[in-house]
Amino acid sequence: MAENDRLDAVLAQLDAGLDAALERLTEFLRIPSISTDPAHAGDVRAAADWLCNELRGIGFDATVRDTPGHPMVVAHSQPGGGRRVLFYGHYDVQPVDPLDLWDRPPFDPVIEDTASGAVIRARGASDDKGQLMTFVEAFRAWKAVHGELPRGLTLLFEGEEESGSPSLRPFLVENADELRASIAMICDTGLYADGRPAITTMLRGLYGEEITIRAADRDLHSGMFGGLAANPLQILCNALAGMKDATGRITLPGFYDGVGELPAELRSDWQDLGFDAAAFLENVGLNTPIGERDRMGLEMVWSRPTFEINGMSGGYTGEGFKTVLPGSASAKVSFRLVGDQDPARIKAAFQDYMRAQVPADCEITFTPHGGSPASRMNISDPAFGAAKQALGEEWGRDAVYIGSGGSIPIAGDFQDILGMDSMLIGFARDDDRIHSPNEKYDVDSFARGARSWARILAALA
Amino acid sequence: MAENDRLDAVLAQLDAGLDAALERLTEFLRIPSISTDPAHAGDVRAAADWLCNELRGIGFDATVRDTPGHPMVVAHSQPGGGRRVLFYGHYDVQPVDPLDLWDRPPFDPVIEDTASGAVIRARGASDDKGQLMTFVEAFRAWKAVHGELPRGLTLLFEGEEESGSPSLRPFLVENADELRASIAMICDTGLYADGRPAITTMLRGLYGEEITIRAADRDLHSGMFGGLAANPLQILCNALAGMKDATGRITLPGFYDGVGELPAELRSDWQDLGFDAAAFLENVGLNTPIGERDRMGLEMVWSRPTFEINGMSGGYTGEGFKTVLPGSASAKVSFRLVGDQDPARIKAAFQDYMRAQVPADCEITFTPHGGSPASRMNISDPAFGAAKQALGEEWGRDAVYIGSGGSIPIAGDFQDILGMDSMLIGFARDDDRIHSPNEKYDVDSFARGARSWARILAALA
Repeated sequence: MAENDRLDAVLAQLDAGLDAALERLTEFLRIPSISTDPAHAGDVRAAADWLCNELRGIGFDATVRDTPGHPMVVAHSQPGGGRRVLFYGHYDVQPVDPLDLWDRPPFDPVIEDTASGAVIRARGASDDKGQLMTFVEAFRAWKAVHGELPRGLTLLFEGEEESGSPSLRPFLVENADELRASIAMICDTGLYADGRPAITTMLRGLYGEEITIRAADRDLHSGMFGGLAANPLQILCNALAGMKDATGRITLPGFYDGVGELPAELRSDWQDLGFDAAAFLENVGLNTPIGERDRMGLEMVWSRPTFEINGMSGGYTGEGFKTVLPGSASAKVSFRLVGDQDPARIKAAFQDYMRAQVPADCEITFTPHGGSPASRMNISDPAFGAAKQALGEEWGRDAVYIGSGGSIPIAGDFQDILGMDSMLIGFARDDDRIHSPNEKYDVDSFARGARSWARILAALA
Repeated sequence: MAENDRLDAVLAQLDAGLDAALERLTEFLRIPSISTDPAHAGDVRAAADWLCNELRGIGFDATVRDTPGHPMVVAHSQPGGGRRVLFYGHYDVQPVDPLDLWDRPPFDPVIEDTASGAVIRARGASDDKGQLMTFVEAFRAWKAVHGELPRGLTLLFEGEEESGSPSLRPFLVENADELRASIAMICDTGLYADGRPAITTMLRGLYGEEITIRAADRDLHSGMFGGLAANPLQILCNALAGMKDATGRITLPGFYDGVGELPAELRSDWQDLGFDAAAFLENVGLNTPIGERDRMGLEMVWSRPTFEINGMSGGYTGEGFKTVLPGSASAKVSFRLVGDQDPARIKAAFQDYMRAQVPADCEITFTPHGGSPASRMNISDPAFGAAKQALGEEWGRDAVYIGSGGSIPIAGDFQDILGMDSMLIGFARDDDRIHSPNEKYDVDSFARGARSWARILAALA
């Protein structure tokens, strides 16, 4: 058979096997593998075991590997072939509270017909069991047609993604030689808003900081002390107000070092997406973009850095009123980072700035939370072009390189520890209700997701 | 007998009767009249009954008067004499929690010898049963010497002062003719810091406001929306930072209208007090006065207006970190007002200012809390000079007119509803631990307090 014919055969095999594949996904979704809840630790392991058995069944050398937390599932196909590729997904799921907002039990999946097509509804259907199984079904169909799995694949499926992945980095470090590949495929993202296939190639970094300012050694009566004693809430407001100028630009010295302008290819791709920032905001009850002027909306969320106050507290916040002058006040703030911005330098600049705002008789303390630089994938690697074309063929419209305003730590970890870029390709939709009651995954996403991976495997072979 | 001899006789009578007076106070303090705790409602009434009986015993026409809350005790001496004088105190006390921080039961009073003299220790000893009884003992001794009470006195003792006085204003309105006098004597304040006798003649007013800014209709993911969506905490910080300029001056248009400069007599009195703002702040772990430059410390707390943030909350404030972009944020703020500042105009100016800080697609709501102008007593009324001189004679050092940074609502209520000024004279000391465990009142305060009132009664007669 010619390569093209073989690919057609794999795709036909996937189509013919869709009902059976949905049966397998249903079985997987019945396991309540909630990683944050210690009561479900046995279920998390059961999900790992189920997955390991599936992978062995289609010829992988698969094992469940213990960690200090929940286990990893690691699997290998035969070595050889072209470049090594690592596939990553996670088999744990979010908690289901509040249970009374679910229309049916979250771990009793059904296929439902909806106005926009058939969906499979259950916790984890989209995030990430359904997406992860698009890999597995593609490998299964490949094996059926080719008689063997694609060579040189490594699979890594995690059971702690929804609880902060505490074991992941140590596991990557300890097993670096086994896991290192030339590129990683991560299936935990979505189609672009209008359903267009997309590869995420830019991820913003993150640096977070909790600040506490202490003034008096107790809460004071504002009648006795007001006018004389420092008010830590006022100090905090003044300092945080000074973080941006009137145009929304962040004022920290050196903050924009390494930010850079968007490459022309991405700018054109993004313009082509027709993102309407006002309409986007209307979904959440707003309509006016804030921030720097003269920037495309997508630039603002994908390739420009931000400073946000995430939380703030101090003084009396209960019912009614207390005319207290608080002894201390706190804020949690975070920066989204892009390009070559250095979290360590920005942390130093921010802490210096904040210290300078605090009177000598007050005290400021910092509790840093995370500090990861932005990730940019090297899209000149031909794998990107090949995957982009494969996605375009499957979905009948051009795939696009997009950014992500959030941080996807695994992509940074793969760069840091294993020295490899990631291709973030997923088929979730904006209305999948991940992390919320009544999560679903479109049967179309599942079926065409698996077909997409078959095409990408063929393109990379 | 000449007037002077009679006063000496009253003072001698008070000295001779001190032990018996302390016995009576002890009995009064045994009644746990905690007004905020419904379980103690019977005790509050018992304290009212006890007081009413005491007053009848020395010749007052005294009654316990029901209100929707705890009762008032109202008493009258024979009409006639010079000007009518109203005496005010309160017979309810603060709760005693945390009980384990008391060295002995709070309602089992004892006289203790301490390094600074004998004290009577119990909840309410200073606030306000001991102070209130300085009136009663002065009247008793007066009666013993003169054969009758001073004429034209009205007594009003409240049982809800520690729970916000909900029944007071309606009671004043309904009984205005019965209660109106030419001046009120309120015994619920203290000696000046160094033990100098003082009459409080200026009280700051108060206007409080709770502000809520709503942006998105939910908390947003700062990765998805950060850079585009309005952050209500940032809006609030910017707005509250703009309330003061770099010199600490409040920037609201018209804010300083009606503030005025301190009269020369008060300035000289206050300078004479030798207040050391830095030392005052050192008691609470600070050392540097904030606020307007070139103002005396006492001016800052007594006769200059303030703006303070009393509480602030929004976004994620729990353990760890959530990169949320909050849907809403709130602050509680208050202004201390002086001179002729008009709470209604300042409220309008503040709300206008805040509204102007909020983008059109966000919403701001206000919940006002209180709005009372400052009170200034007319110290050209000769009663002030007479009382000041009487206090000076009793305490052996010049009495002084002072201010109060806090608001004492009863003084404003007497001005508003009964059209009379108040003389706030009290004998509490800074270390009396009012509202705290191990409250005490100096026996010296009690004894010389009663003697002070005897002198003031004589001076006003």
